[in-house]
Amino acid sequence: MGALHAGPPAPAVDRPLRVVAFGGGHGLAAALAAWRRLTPDLTAVVTVADDGGSSGRIRREMPVLPPGDLRMALTALADDGADTRQMAALLQHRLGGTGVLAGHPVGNLMLTGLVEMHGGDTVRALDDLCRLLGARGRVLPMADAPLDLVARVESTDPDDPARTRTIRGQVAIATTPGRVRDIIVSPPDPPVHPAVLEAIAAADVISLGPGSWYTSVLPHLLVPRLRAALAASSARVVVVLNLEPQPGETDGFSPEEHLAVLRAHLGGVALHWVIADVDSVVDRCGLLSAVRECGAELVLAPVAELDGAPRHDPVRLAAALGSAVAAR
Amino acid sequence: MGALHAGPPAPAVDRPLRVVAFGGGHGLAAALAAWRRLTPDLTAVVTVADDGGSSGRIRREMPVLPPGDLRMALTALADDGADTRQMAALLQHRLGGTGVLAGHPVGNLMLTGLVEMHGGDTVRALDDLCRLLGARGRVLPMADAPLDLVARVESTDPDDPARTRTIRGQVAIATTPGRVRDIIVSPPDPPVHPAVLEAIAAADVISLGPGSWYTSVLPHLLVPRLRAALAASSARVVVVLNLEPQPGETDGFSPEEHLAVLRAHLGGVALHWVIADVDSVVDRCGLLSAVRECGAELVLAPVAELDGAPRHDPVRLAAALGSAVAAR
Repeated sequence: MGALHAGPPAPAVDRPLRVVAFGGGHGLAAALAAWRRLTPDLTAVVTVADDGGSSGRIRREMPVLPPGDLRMALTALADDGADTRQMAALLQHRLGGTGVLAGHPVGNLMLTGLVEMHGGDTVRALDDLCRLLGARGRVLPMADAPLDLVARVESTDPDDPARTRTIRGQVAIATTPGRVRDIIVSPPDPPVHPAVLEAIAAADVISLGPGSWYTSVLPHLLVPRLRAALAASSARVVVVLNLEPQPGETDGFSPEEHLAVLRAHLGGVALHWVIADVDSVVDRCGLLSAVRECGAELVLAPVAELDGAPRHDPVRLAAALGSAVAAR
Repeated sequence: MGALHAGPPAPAVDRPLRVVAFGGGHGLAAALAAWRRLTPDLTAVVTVADDGGSSGRIRREMPVLPPGDLRMALTALADDGADTRQMAALLQHRLGGTGVLAGHPVGNLMLTGLVEMHGGDTVRALDDLCRLLGARGRVLPMADAPLDLVARVESTDPDDPARTRTIRGQVAIATTPGRVRDIIVSPPDPPVHPAVLEAIAAADVISLGPGSWYTSVLPHLLVPRLRAALAASSARVVVVLNLEPQPGETDGFSPEEHLAVLRAHLGGVALHWVIADVDSVVDRCGLLSAVRECGAELVLAPVAELDGAPRHDPVRLAAALGSAVAAR
């Protein structure tokens, strides 16, 4: 496989590994919690297609990117000092009460306010919050316009006369019973901030996943300017598979099926490593074949939380990521 | 006058003047902008009776003190560094858009979130924000429970069969035409945080005003535990009079009428200096008599903005305050 993808030159010993991690939500936060143990030169590129919860309410009120996934990535990068930890806790704190403010994380409102103050410059607002949080790394939006996801969902109801239905919006897709068959973003070719393209061009390692496969991971490959930058990059690409299928999105998907869906959307983007949890894989041979068909190497390692929760453990995931990138 | 009020011992040369400034809204912010030029040992004690705007909306949704006046005092004490100035600007920034968030200053939501995080401990949340803003001094609420003001307002409508009406709530009082005749707080004896009582006991100087006379200045004298602490204090008390009457509250009030209203509510609290703008006083003799009847000294100085706006200029007000406290 090394012959197929020469990979970037090894970074000079005096600079840390440059990692750009793509994703959204809790999955990206888990990846960032792992990567920050390996490098300070970390850029998170975050989905902006959420239309649910606080982000959805804010999107409907004002012309800003949905802040929720950006906020989660910011707090995942916050410094461990007492003041910055408390500030991260405030960003994550959801307002209580019984009124229209209830449920909004304070950080969503802070980010929205900063974006407004900066005349719509989301990247500047994110950089401000990174500084406030003493963040290790940087957080960028995957696109400079709010996105909508549009999916064809295959019905699981035998009485439904339609085999597939077109469903618009992240929440609707995630809550429509059935399997997502394919997905596009709307608008189909959104603008991408130059900082994102520069980060991809300068990256040693590109990281994708874990996370809601159709709504947090694949969307990055659906934005033409992002996919083109990823395809042109000489960085090594590592994919972190999910620990279990996601109801409403990937019901019953095996790890190799996750990979097959990803492969169908790669469009010239190379894969180098696929990281899967050793205890979540039933058919190791099947997965190994699927990984090899992608031209990648499989890293099977214990990366789930020790308590059996279906979450990636940052220390274990960092160990697996570290062993992969050390082997390049 | 010096014989009547011995005043506190002069502070040792190695510690700055301890000032506690009472008020609310823009008036208190103006006083703080002046006092911070004179001492770093500055405590703002802020009204918590606002029921309008963002504060009113938040009060109706959750059981917290109205945050607006507290936020304004915080930002008035923010450090002048670029990062803290920007943070203060974020606290003051009002969310836009066309929905239920529009108009909320981000700082009101941050303070509310911190109070919730700290289980209702407003003072801890304020200390957090002071640290975030690098504040010179400290901000405390005048009471540990949200207050309502209840006023008797004299009608100015000759056809109104009622000469006076009882009006409840700061906004209603400020917008009811006529003159406030008297005012009480509800609940009548709210709890006061020990930090406020300690600050009063340790103060060298107590500062009152400027500000909406009935809704930001007098309320401090209507809270029994505050008034008792002020009456027991050995600090010198300075009152900063407003530059002009306030429509709906003090229509047509001269400076000496402001003072007469204040005097009627002193209940044992001594006055030492009264600061009035030299250009806002028409009847100097009348004001001088009124000040002397309070047992205080008049400081007539140019303290308004040079551009003629009815606002106190921080530098000029600081000069007047400084000359008063230097003379003690």
